[in-house]
Amino acid sequence: MTDAHGNRLDPWVDAYATRARGMTASEIRALFAVASRPEVVSLAGGMPYVSALNLDAMADTISDLVRTRGTQALQYGSGQGDAVLREQIGEVMAEVGITGHPDDIVVTTGSQMALDLVTRVFCDPGDVVFVEAPSYVGALGVFRAYECTVIHVPMDDEGLQPVALAEAIGRARAQGLRPKMIYTIPSFHNPGGITQGPQRRRDILDIAQREGLLLLEDDPYGLLGFDDVGFGDAPPRAIRADDADGVVYLGSFSKTIASGLRVGWALAPHGVREKLVLAAEAAVLCPSNYAQMTISSYLATQPWREQVKVFRETYRERRDALLDELTRQMPEGTTWTHPAGGFYSWLTLPEGLDATAMLPRAVAALVAYVPGTGFYVDGSGRQHMRLSYCYPEPERIREGVRRLAGVIETEVELAATFGTGHTLHDPAGPSTPTPDQA
Amino acid sequence: MTDAHGNRLDPWVDAYATRARGMTASEIRALFAVASRPEVVSLAGGMPYVSALNLDAMADTISDLVRTRGTQALQYGSGQGDAVLREQIGEVMAEVGITGHPDDIVVTTGSQMALDLVTRVFCDPGDVVFVEAPSYVGALGVFRAYECTVIHVPMDDEGLQPVALAEAIGRARAQGLRPKMIYTIPSFHNPGGITQGPQRRRDILDIAQREGLLLLEDDPYGLLGFDDVGFGDAPPRAIRADDADGVVYLGSFSKTIASGLRVGWALAPHGVREKLVLAAEAAVLCPSNYAQMTISSYLATQPWREQVKVFRETYRERRDALLDELTRQMPEGTTWTHPAGGFYSWLTLPEGLDATAMLPRAVAALVAYVPGTGFYVDGSGRQHMRLSYCYPEPERIREGVRRLAGVIETEVELAATFGTGHTLHDPAGPSTPTPDQA
Repeated sequence: MTDAHGNRLDPWVDAYATRARGMTASEIRALFAVASRPEVVSLAGGMPYVSALNLDAMADTISDLVRTRGTQALQYGSGQGDAVLREQIGEVMAEVGITGHPDDIVVTTGSQMALDLVTRVFCDPGDVVFVEAPSYVGALGVFRAYECTVIHVPMDDEGLQPVALAEAIGRARAQGLRPKMIYTIPSFHNPGGITQGPQRRRDILDIAQREGLLLLEDDPYGLLGFDDVGFGDAPPRAIRADDADGVVYLGSFSKTIASGLRVGWALAPHGVREKLVLAAEAAVLCPSNYAQMTISSYLATQPWREQVKVFRETYRERRDALLDELTRQMPEGTTWTHPAGGFYSWLTLPEGLDATAMLPRAVAALVAYVPGTGFYVDGSGRQHMRLSYCYPEPERIREGVRRLAGVIETEVELAATFGTGHTLHDPAGPSTPTPDQA
Repeated sequence: MTDAHGNRLDPWVDAYATRARGMTASEIRALFAVASRPEVVSLAGGMPYVSALNLDAMADTISDLVRTRGTQALQYGSGQGDAVLREQIGEVMAEVGITGHPDDIVVTTGSQMALDLVTRVFCDPGDVVFVEAPSYVGALGVFRAYECTVIHVPMDDEGLQPVALAEAIGRARAQGLRPKMIYTIPSFHNPGGITQGPQRRRDILDIAQREGLLLLEDDPYGLLGFDDVGFGDAPPRAIRADDADGVVYLGSFSKTIASGLRVGWALAPHGVREKLVLAAEAAVLCPSNYAQMTISSYLATQPWREQVKVFRETYRERRDALLDELTRQMPEGTTWTHPAGGFYSWLTLPEGLDATAMLPRAVAALVAYVPGTGFYVDGSGRQHMRLSYCYPEPERIREGVRRLAGVIETEVELAATFGTGHTLHDPAGPSTPTPDQA
């Protein structure tokens, strides 16, 4: 079953659901396969630096778990998640000011699944979700999978703009659309590298409450802050800490312990939590007891706060290397955000340059990034890119920035001489996320 | 936010998506919580007997994995699943006659998630899925979550009836409905305890091909057969072995290794596989490397075929205990299926009895089962129940059957004297599955 070009035809092409018709792999994927070669400095991936973990301690914890409680760890568990782990998640959330009941927590296969479940439970096709411009590519993939209407709201240097948000909601209502949720990453935004201060959070919550919209607060990086952004020495206080009925809070162990375990959670108002558990059971029956109990044992027996501090210091050093080298190398007209935590800086190219078109040249020069278009549903973002500093060593980051600066300089010269080049085909805004883009 | 009865009201009750409105917990759930007490013999749960595993060997395998390849096991992985594991899954599927390419396999968080993804990719609201009567409660939960129209097709002692299937498809088309998939569990059916022979499988595949419908073959129990059902000494040959383009095959390690790892897979036609990977990435980014590499190491270093044989012998002994004791104890008018493998027998009560209404009395008599209604979308099944023999020891199974026979006898007497009793509220056919019902 091959066509004239040797491609296999899909006999089911007319049978797919409407939601699946737009599911196509972006051409960027092929480039990322190339970008994973060791000689390429990847500033693209959002992979945490798990080498910073104490693997021997982890191995001992797990081995002990399987030997002593293996028949539980290897068995089906509750659809809502392990009760002991849910208690411990309560302690973790206390770090960002949240007092939540373990019964209102649902453990999921990474917080990506929590995003999926919340959308499944709340969004009919066409329902409007307001998101930052730009927004997390994985969230956009979920909203598209449920055929939501996604409306981007501009950010400033404190993130999502309240006035613009209120206006966007008003416009949507005036157009007869059905606003349903506001999705935000208040702390160390992916991909924006921006953090909402205390007043900004209050303003956004006020709007959500006034408009009767669910606020979906995604907080994978909350404990990975470097600088004071208005909360003193403490991690940024979660919006959920100030509203238990109107906010669904998403948390994750992917960045504070290990992403390979795929353990995240949602803390939700009680009635919503019930729906989420039922939806979770339909989706996966139950989360992995094995992964959950590994996390739970780790939290109980290892100095996890110290480990988070190690991660924080690692990422701070890398952030500093990135920002310093950007300042040294980047040609005039290039700007970038100064993240106070998390994994990412958002870079804006000089006028007329196109990050999507430039990517093949960058990969040829052995540096990779994620073009901005993936973080918008509307084709915006060509002048932007996301730079990740979480995974490469500082010296590699500096080398990557030097290579990138060289590519940008060449592009600036070419654009000045010949005008801007043609562009790589990148269909329909956000490609479905790859773990590389997480 | 409490009402006069002290219940918390759900402020989001009007905001849920249409698909979530029907997501309500069955009252049966509360009973299962009671049924999990140790003094109750549970013939309800579908939990594999993981105590039969060599936990020390498992602990050593895992500890070694984390020590030597921890930075990979604890990191994000590919959305499609680990390449080495996909090769190994190819070997496992060879046992049921399948020659599949590792590139056409998607690893999922249990095969439940594969079910979810296939439905997500193929089914618009209203699309028709044909299922056995009765069918797996977890599949019905997925089909409901995607607002499919589910049509039950009768089984005989070789499972799904081809003539009835063809008629049901014809009727659906005549009504202007959109038939999309046939969902079947050909081997050791859950909950039916019935297996399709070779000719039956060919007949069903013929119909799917002729009608242009996707055949979704769910095969979690394929390697757990006790008796020859037309395939000699080999496990039943999968339908997928005879059609690579028209069948999506779902497999799982939950019953052959350990359910707590939550590792299953789909083998799909190439174009479908591409869609499934994109859908999987939207749903969970990637499956757990940690769980996948645990399975992969186990398959590579442990005698897994011997372990499957141990499971098979364990379940055969329990099946024999169940059938023998049913024959000894059950009152006239009670019938049950004779499973040649898997976990379940499907019992039919004497005329006029209601398994849902009877459940509280059974639990009071310290025995539990799953009432038949959960396995239908249309309220059928009251005269039936599913009995699982996978988890309790043989003597406990016999004790459970004795208790159950006592309850049924009392019900028969009561029905003869007073007519049938009133019934427990069990809304809308299938409740979302609990792991207990898996």
